[in-house]
Amino acid sequence: MKQRKIYLDNLRFEEARELLLNSFRAGGQTESERVRVFEALGRVSSVPVSAVLSAPNHNASAMDGIAVTAAATETADERSHLELELGKGFIYVDTGDPVTEPWDAVIMVEDLLEADEERVVIKAAARAWQHIRPVGEDIAAGEMIVPSFHRIRPVDIGALIAGGITEIAVFRKPRVAIIPTGTEIIEDPSQMRKGSIIDSNSRMFAAMVTEAGAEAICYSPVIDDKELIRAAFKKAIGEADVVILGAGSSAGSEDYSAEIISDFGELLFHGVAVKPGKPAIFGKAGNKPLVGLPGYPVSGFIIFDRLVKPLLQVMQGLGADTETFKQGLLSRRITSSLEHREFVRVKCGYVGSRLVVSPLSRGAGITMSLVQADGILEVPQESEGYEAGEEVTIRLSRPAREIENRLVSIGSHDLLLDVVAEQLHRGGSHTGLSSTHQGSMGGVMAMRRGECHLAPVHLLNTEDGRYNEYLFNRYFKDGGAALIKGVGRIQGLIVQSGNPKRLGGIADLVREDVGFVNRQRGSGTRVLLDYLLEKEGLDSSSIRGYERDMTTHMAVASAVKSGTADAGLGVYSAAAVNGLDFIPSGREDYDFLVRTDMIDHPAVRQFIECLRSEVFKSALTELGGYEFSEPGKIFLFDES
Amino acid sequence: MKQRKIYLDNLRFEEARELLLNSFRAGGQTESERVRVFEALGRVSSVPVSAVLSAPNHNASAMDGIAVTAAATETADERSHLELELGKGFIYVDTGDPVTEPWDAVIMVEDLLEADEERVVIKAAARAWQHIRPVGEDIAAGEMIVPSFHRIRPVDIGALIAGGITEIAVFRKPRVAIIPTGTEIIEDPSQMRKGSIIDSNSRMFAAMVTEAGAEAICYSPVIDDKELIRAAFKKAIGEADVVILGAGSSAGSEDYSAEIISDFGELLFHGVAVKPGKPAIFGKAGNKPLVGLPGYPVSGFIIFDRLVKPLLQVMQGLGADTETFKQGLLSRRITSSLEHREFVRVKCGYVGSRLVVSPLSRGAGITMSLVQADGILEVPQESEGYEAGEEVTIRLSRPAREIENRLVSIGSHDLLLDVVAEQLHRGGSHTGLSSTHQGSMGGVMAMRRGECHLAPVHLLNTEDGRYNEYLFNRYFKDGGAALIKGVGRIQGLIVQSGNPKRLGGIADLVREDVGFVNRQRGSGTRVLLDYLLEKEGLDSSSIRGYERDMTTHMAVASAVKSGTADAGLGVYSAAAVNGLDFIPSGREDYDFLVRTDMIDHPAVRQFIECLRSEVFKSALTELGGYEFSEPGKIFLFDES
Repeated sequence: MKQRKIYLDNLRFEEARELLLNSFRAGGQTESERVRVFEALGRVSSVPVSAVLSAPNHNASAMDGIAVTAAATETADERSHLELELGKGFIYVDTGDPVTEPWDAVIMVEDLLEADEERVVIKAAARAWQHIRPVGEDIAAGEMIVPSFHRIRPVDIGALIAGGITEIAVFRKPRVAIIPTGTEIIEDPSQMRKGSIIDSNSRMFAAMVTEAGAEAICYSPVIDDKELIRAAFKKAIGEADVVILGAGSSAGSEDYSAEIISDFGELLFHGVAVKPGKPAIFGKAGNKPLVGLPGYPVSGFIIFDRLVKPLLQVMQGLGADTETFKQGLLSRRITSSLEHREFVRVKCGYVGSRLVVSPLSRGAGITMSLVQADGILEVPQESEGYEAGEEVTIRLSRPAREIENRLVSIGSHDLLLDVVAEQLHRGGSHTGLSSTHQGSMGGVMAMRRGECHLAPVHLLNTEDGRYNEYLFNRYFKDGGAALIKGVGRIQGLIVQSGNPKRLGGIADLVREDVGFVNRQRGSGTRVLLDYLLEKEGLDSSSIRGYERDMTTHMAVASAVKSGTADAGLGVYSAAAVNGLDFIPSGREDYDFLVRTDMIDHPAVRQFIECLRSEVFKSALTELGGYEFSEPGKIFLFDES
Repeated sequence: MKQRKIYLDNLRFEEARELLLNSFRAGGQTESERVRVFEALGRVSSVPVSAVLSAPNHNASAMDGIAVTAAATETADERSHLELELGKGFIYVDTGDPVTEPWDAVIMVEDLLEADEERVVIKAAARAWQHIRPVGEDIAAGEMIVPSFHRIRPVDIGALIAGGITEIAVFRKPRVAIIPTGTEIIEDPSQMRKGSIIDSNSRMFAAMVTEAGAEAICYSPVIDDKELIRAAFKKAIGEADVVILGAGSSAGSEDYSAEIISDFGELLFHGVAVKPGKPAIFGKAGNKPLVGLPGYPVSGFIIFDRLVKPLLQVMQGLGADTETFKQGLLSRRITSSLEHREFVRVKCGYVGSRLVVSPLSRGAGITMSLVQADGILEVPQESEGYEAGEEVTIRLSRPAREIENRLVSIGSHDLLLDVVAEQLHRGGSHTGLSSTHQGSMGGVMAMRRGECHLAPVHLLNTEDGRYNEYLFNRYFKDGGAALIKGVGRIQGLIVQSGNPKRLGGIADLVREDVGFVNRQRGSGTRVLLDYLLEKEGLDSSSIRGYERDMTTHMAVASAVKSGTADAGLGVYSAAAVNGLDFIPSGREDYDFLVRTDMIDHPAVRQFIECLRSEVFKSALTELGGYEFSEPGKIFLFDES
């Protein structure tokens, strides 16, 4: 058994960041290279660039009309008209045409009294240089077009080319070598064996490198062998400007990283007081940052985003900060330790005019918390957290527009939510549907706290055997919520393919040879199970696995499929998608609570129209396990 | 002479945009293609993607410790310890290791009483599945990872790969053909002849296409020959999803575009009520947008940005709007016509906590107004403009951070400003220097309106022959401004190389055979000229070209270099950069007004340190024409 990890350091986040930026800020830039201007989009200029040609490069007519010699028109006025002869006294010019000696003024076509192929008549003298765009009016040769340390935009490309520049000097893109390590790590999903983990981190880091304007070199995974890792590291340090060692998930894995980084350079620190991401390692070999990233995806992401990305920007001569921030109200209390800065992934939504910020799963292993996150809320080290209702500032991780244009749904999960989201898009609407799965009761509570527009629920009133309607009397006495009718849904036992244990129904769950997997407290499915058990007079404590709980239908199906359970209660589609058998146990109502002040909101109307559509019904019929009676019908509180 | 342009339409901007989006929104998306996940950054999913593998794909230990069979530990408690034998009663596991039958629980290493190679002692029973990350805890097979119409980010790539996905379906990047037209248009600056215009627009549009996630195909310029343009258009419509005809600068050029677009498809409109950009043309051939962009760079930019870019986004399944907006106070009045929507390029800066928004040059031909712009202020068609001090909303055209971290300088231009900006960057500071050139008096007025932090000035008091100090008594009686000493600067006559007209000084400007080019009213150089003329008893009306004015030293030098003037008054460096001769006429003080409440601001301190540095002196000595006495010294109002 390996020794447990001891971190050398526990630097405050701010100190770690300053230490890093100061270590590489001066002289940390990559060398210059020359690139063609039209290929320079997004690159950063390493020297100021001045025009070599003027634009316009000639005196140009600013109007359609005639070019004249001003001095020769001096006698013309309202009373004494002047006739000019083509070629001798004037030439015709269009906007943009060059005006050269002897001509030094332009008269607009509107100001000509008569005009034909050979002669014109004018009624006013021309002022020298009138209606002429002088050489260099836009860009004068020698004038600076872009300063150094400037990220080239399309308009800069236009101006540079107009100024006669064809090539510019930019900082070379930093090359970043990414070396995944860990014997359990595989590159190709088809090589999956028990215990294997697909190397998803490297490609995520590589994409972050690309987004930061640098170039990623992805290495194949190296097994946990110090000499092999050292060899890969040596190669990387030879060809890259930054070397990143990605730790495997095993506990001792970072030890190799720290040791190797110390061997090849100076170890700056090992361990930062952040959560997740504590075991980060940073070192320095000459001007090259050496990095050991933690193996858990969220930890690796946070450390890359907050400490590696700023370095890549500084190496290209840019500032370290480029984020968009947004203020919102926290929906639930967050507590955090004084021992670290915590990066909490959050989901947001506008409910009325308030941006409501809700924390997501805080586990470092939950990649999906990054995918679902709208932003990250940082709890500083000296803070123990925030209270519900407090105003907080988050860093956005997706465009603000996406957050503004969407329905927020919190509650029970069903595949029909994906069907609806898809239909909203297909119809050309930019309304998104953001759904978070916290079980039916989680949805009811979120609706009460004002965190969501919609809450999908399937909650049985065990007293009358009816679904969902009792929620109004119990939780929304003062109004505020209505019900949108959803679908009837078949719940049943998800069992191994072929039903090898010969399960007939709920009563068989108490059998000695049957392992069960349950849903979490507050989920409609668990309420249903308890109701069914009570109806049959069965004792939950005699079910092996009753306490083992999962948060989604899909997770229950996965547990059955993996063979660690024989049965779980869930919906038909979860069984079907996983190729498992299904024993129907009952029908339930899966409906949507909605905020009454949102019923006439265009996005909610679209949602309702979608439920009522034939496309929706046929998509669900294909999935199987649903029944329909008036989906999309609205029940107001007073009627219920 | 060509017929003057008659626009077919004058559509309101909002109508034009709606018409366009509605024409292409439904069914306008490009077809799907499959790409490798790790190459999908920034692409847009065309169908929802669900995991094919779970992550973790095995039950995994969540701790370092031992795996046991929970049922076999039932008897263990504080009083009755239990000894387990390696292989029979337990195995050692590290975090992430798979836990397989018969093991179904993990005990943390911290909870072991004794442990060696062969045996451990525990003091508590294990609960089944404790400290085990179940299959699918992060991602369950079958679970949706990204919906359709979603732009792929690095975290999505990580999650997709973790879910066993190697390829995904995305919308093909729209291909955009860009055809520049105009006989005067050249591609290669080395081919420059009198009247030539370098094709800078196409490469600017191409970069905008790339930024919008699409693919540009740049055609070589086609001369103004309808059949040649038609042939290029036909080829383009065969290979691209969008065809853009870029008009030349000549007036009749768009006529061809409108005609050709009508020939190949349906003309949607020709002419939008916007300024600049009115002559825009849009058509449709099947699902392909056909576009005629105006020739002036700013007009082309505005139409591309506001009407073409949204189409490219919609074709990829994205929303049409992705901008960042910001509120600020307008520094000067803007008047605009009720006949169009106007897009005013603006510069911004934080002065105190206020974001001050100042309009830039409104000419459609001024590319540099795009380069210098921080954003665009739209004046709607039904508005006649905004008053100074009014709160306005601008669309940012550079990162907000860049605007926040910089000194705003408005006033007289000198090359030393570029030297300072460069030094601020080189020192690793992220303070930018944004300088706008409105002449010395323009700077004084901007400082009074609170638009800038610094105002570079060289204004002579003709009563005492001293520079700049009199400004305090005249314009800043109540304080608010101080003076930072700059440099002594040599002004003189900029003349043709070799001085063919044998000019000896100011007195020669009244000669019959000498053409002059002046600076604008309010510029320090013009004040100096008038002072010198008066001192020598000369009459400005006898100078040919006295009324011809330019706004910068470089533009004066360009006019001399192009041969349209024999002399202009300006600084040595402008002559030197352009290879012209220089006849010194006097020395002036070029100093900086600064807001007193900004003197201790870190950015101003950096600016002052820079003026005081040796690097600054030697850079200016190299440019030539400067003298130094205590640059960077601060004169407060009371002392002056």
